[in-house]
Amino acid sequence: MSKEITSRNEDYSQWYNDLVIKGGLADHSGVKGCMVIKPYGFALWENMRDQLDRMFKDTGHVNAYFPLFIPKSFLSREAAHVEGFAKECAVVTHYRLKNDPNGGGVIVDPEAKLEEELIVRPTSETIIWNTYRDWIKSYRDLPLLINQWANVVRWEMRTRLFLRTAEFLWQEGHTAHATAVEAIAETKQMLDVYATFAEEYMALPVIKGVKTESERFAGAVDTYCIEALMQDGKALQAGTSHFLGQNFAKAFDVRFSDKNNQLDYVWATSWGVSTRLIGGLVMAHSDDDGLILPPRIAPLQVVIVPIYKGEERKDALDAKGRELAAAFKAVGISVKYDDNDNSRPGFKFAEYELKGVPVRIAMGLRDLDNNTVEVARRDTKEKTAVPMEGLTGYVRQLLETIQQSMYDKAMAYRDAHITRADTMAEFEKLLDEKGGFVLAHWDGTPATEEAIKEKTKATIRCIPLNNPAEDGKCILTGRPSKQRVLFARAY
Amino acid sequence: MSKEITSRNEDYSQWYNDLVIKGGLADHSGVKGCMVIKPYGFALWENMRDQLDRMFKDTGHVNAYFPLFIPKSFLSREAAHVEGFAKECAVVTHYRLKNDPNGGGVIVDPEAKLEEELIVRPTSETIIWNTYRDWIKSYRDLPLLINQWANVVRWEMRTRLFLRTAEFLWQEGHTAHATAVEAIAETKQMLDVYATFAEEYMALPVIKGVKTESERFAGAVDTYCIEALMQDGKALQAGTSHFLGQNFAKAFDVRFSDKNNQLDYVWATSWGVSTRLIGGLVMAHSDDDGLILPPRIAPLQVVIVPIYKGEERKDALDAKGRELAAAFKAVGISVKYDDNDNSRPGFKFAEYELKGVPVRIAMGLRDLDNNTVEVARRDTKEKTAVPMEGLTGYVRQLLETIQQSMYDKAMAYRDAHITRADTMAEFEKLLDEKGGFVLAHWDGTPATEEAIKEKTKATIRCIPLNNPAEDGKCILTGRPSKQRVLFARAY
Ligand SMILES: [Zn+2]
Ligand SMILES: [Zn+2]
Repeated sequence: MSKEITSRNEDYSQWYNDLVIKGGLADHSGVKGCMVIKPYGFALWENMRDQLDRMFKDTGHVNAYFPLFIPKSFLSREAAHVEGFAKECAVVTHYRLKNDPNGGGVIVDPEAKLEEELIVRPTSETIIWNTYRDWIKSYRDLPLLINQWANVVRWEMRTRLFLRTAEFLWQEGHTAHATAVEAIAETKQMLDVYATFAEEYMALPVIKGVKTESERFAGAVDTYCIEALMQDGKALQAGTSHFLGQNFAKAFDVRFSDKNNQLDYVWATSWGVSTRLIGGLVMAHSDDDGLILPPRIAPLQVVIVPIYKGEERKDALDAKGRELAAAFKAVGISVKYDDNDNSRPGFKFAEYELKGVPVRIAMGLRDLDNNTVEVARRDTKEKTAVPMEGLTGYVRQLLETIQQSMYDKAMAYRDAHITRADTMAEFEKLLDEKGGFVLAHWDGTPATEEAIKEKTKATIRCIPLNNPAEDGKCILTGRPSKQRVLFARAY
Repeated sequence: MSKEITSRNEDYSQWYNDLVIKGGLADHSGVKGCMVIKPYGFALWENMRDQLDRMFKDTGHVNAYFPLFIPKSFLSREAAHVEGFAKECAVVTHYRLKNDPNGGGVIVDPEAKLEEELIVRPTSETIIWNTYRDWIKSYRDLPLLINQWANVVRWEMRTRLFLRTAEFLWQEGHTAHATAVEAIAETKQMLDVYATFAEEYMALPVIKGVKTESERFAGAVDTYCIEALMQDGKALQAGTSHFLGQNFAKAFDVRFSDKNNQLDYVWATSWGVSTRLIGGLVMAHSDDDGLILPPRIAPLQVVIVPIYKGEERKDALDAKGRELAAAFKAVGISVKYDDNDNSRPGFKFAEYELKGVPVRIAMGLRDLDNNTVEVARRDTKEKTAVPMEGLTGYVRQLLETIQQSMYDKAMAYRDAHITRADTMAEFEKLLDEKGGFVLAHWDGTPATEEAIKEKTKATIRCIPLNNPAEDGKCILTGRPSKQRVLFARAY
């Protein structure tokens, strides 16, 4: 192996870091809490972003761009919002540096203090609704269906690459509607878009649900979410979609005249997914040899590696390798022919396994004579001899097979890790020994939710949509409950 | 007209603002110095960004993402760089707000003061070269050809939408090379990419050149640029490409071992264009009725407007309009069929003229009978009756004609506004009465350049590439000069 990867059993968290850093996705930076997204990781994000963007546009949304900075007073306008977001944030207080008169390099110029501090956006509801006040006058201006791709900052002391960083990249949709019904429909539609994206592109099965009051977005009436399961049995929130009611419209005085010329406050939604999804992708699929990336979003779908000794017939191998690569490109499959002389095939194999390239094609002199190649799947590591004739069709089908097979595997694992618990003892034993989601009765109070969290580190991930009614007793308090809710320890 | 546009003659600067705001490109925001890029403006930027991104990838570059924040000390490492960029910038000094114990809302928590202030990136050379130190060890790691799409902040007191704002969007390429020759070739290659983009996509002729020492990027050995001419006779710098020598490698100690195992500092380039280009696009082509957008980057290339009274045969018109729209879409032309009943055709015509949609198709009941439509070009306002049969082919050709014709018109204007001056009197008269570029002799000293700027507000835009040698005398000092340089008043 070219690069040592810690195994999952040995140290799950180190395994994750090894994959992210050595797999070329991201790295720590010279700035505390901020990461560098490396070219391979960014190419993955571009594929995810482009697909999501298509899905947003197909559902009638357009992109726009709003300021990075939010005046401090804006954050305070919505009472719940300020509690949730004003705390850990990057605060700009000055707009100039100057040379230290005592020769100590550059220092902050005390005379360049801002009258009002600016917050680096942790999320953009406030600045956007302050803008919507000018854009929305009449029902004819509604719905307003806008999305923004942006960087946001939430100060974090303990960070993990992709999963929790001070700065991250995301998209945030902010829509405005004439009625609550329409806004709720939008909230649910975008949750469905996220679920479809996670399942069909990331091969990541998710549970759709609604958050409890204490896990709700600061300023929302209802927060919907999709929850995925990682290989260590912990849950990861993979996207949220919020019905904001008229909270932000009231905070920023955004009213519209309806068809009867009556003034009313506008109804709002917001929804977002971030580069955090990449962390989920890594943890859901990869193994001890490296990343396993779903073909539909992999930056590189196929790699072709020539096997040769010395220069014997190297030209013939190269010619065939480039011919195959051109054939893949022609049908829209991303491919690299790796003719680098500086590393041996074994080293290359390990490197592409580490990087999670879905299909590896090896081709030696005997293959050349037989008009065959060796095709290896990254997910199962199966190898098959395949005729060169019809190879692109074979590989195209194989990529779809891998995509489906990765989803099925993650789904089987996820389904095997949804367990019911009827007592606190069972509940804790499950969390400690098996992990995964636990369906349990809860009395519906934030106090009980908090007490269970304190005791077990498990939180209510969501109340699944279409949750069946079931009479039972809260696992902590024994008080009556009408349905089970979905608990897990989570990222 | 639906919206009043100030004419160019009346108030050029107000005309520009009217086009940008009323044309739906951008608007002021609740944050001083920051703009909102509206959906129509952002769609234009997306088209520009996507084309540039393709051109960067075609020349072997990959995208990555580096932190928004730069530790203050990083800026000071390169002596010239800190002078240029440490001054007007947004400084993050704290990472938390708290509730005011005196009830005054939220205030900065004095206990959450950063040990070292963070600067919101004005440009990313420092943070990127601090990262490259870990990425580059050997000649095998070179060249490193990376681009970043990002927001940057340079504090500005007097701002103009797109042209000068505190926050703007841009791309910044940062490449690393084993030799000076290779880095210089990269610098020039990217200048060519920018020139090609400006001319072929923005229909904007540009002059390629190199900056004088005083106009050079802070930290560069040489700054290359493309300069365009606006309709008011002022120049606009439309892109820059810098050869950075080993300055940043030395500042951040980035060395590589060459093929002979000798350690040497790495050679660097950086290059960028920004949303400022949109300002140039507006000012180069538009007229008193609104924007005129080049077809290759216009968010909407064709609009179809039905002309009818009451409901008579409205269904037939709608059916035909949708059929035509589908036919345009099928061949990759972006189109809208505007069947909105709330506004009259005249209002719609004015609105699409304001927005600069290149081709407008009007279709009334008589057209329906005759199987014709009326096709209007936005740039020349010519109208032509065209048979419906073969319409997509006709329009596809017309879009290319408009693209070329816009370029030719801008080029003719530009060429008519490059004038020679041999005395200060001629020079000032030209600037005041005709505007445009003035070719004049200069003695090569920064002092003279500064004196001319003080006296006339004109700067040396560049020394054009392949500038002919010509003996002459400096217009200000009379000292000998070997070539003319390109002066202009500029944005
Ligand atoms: Zn298990
Ligand atoms: Zn003129």
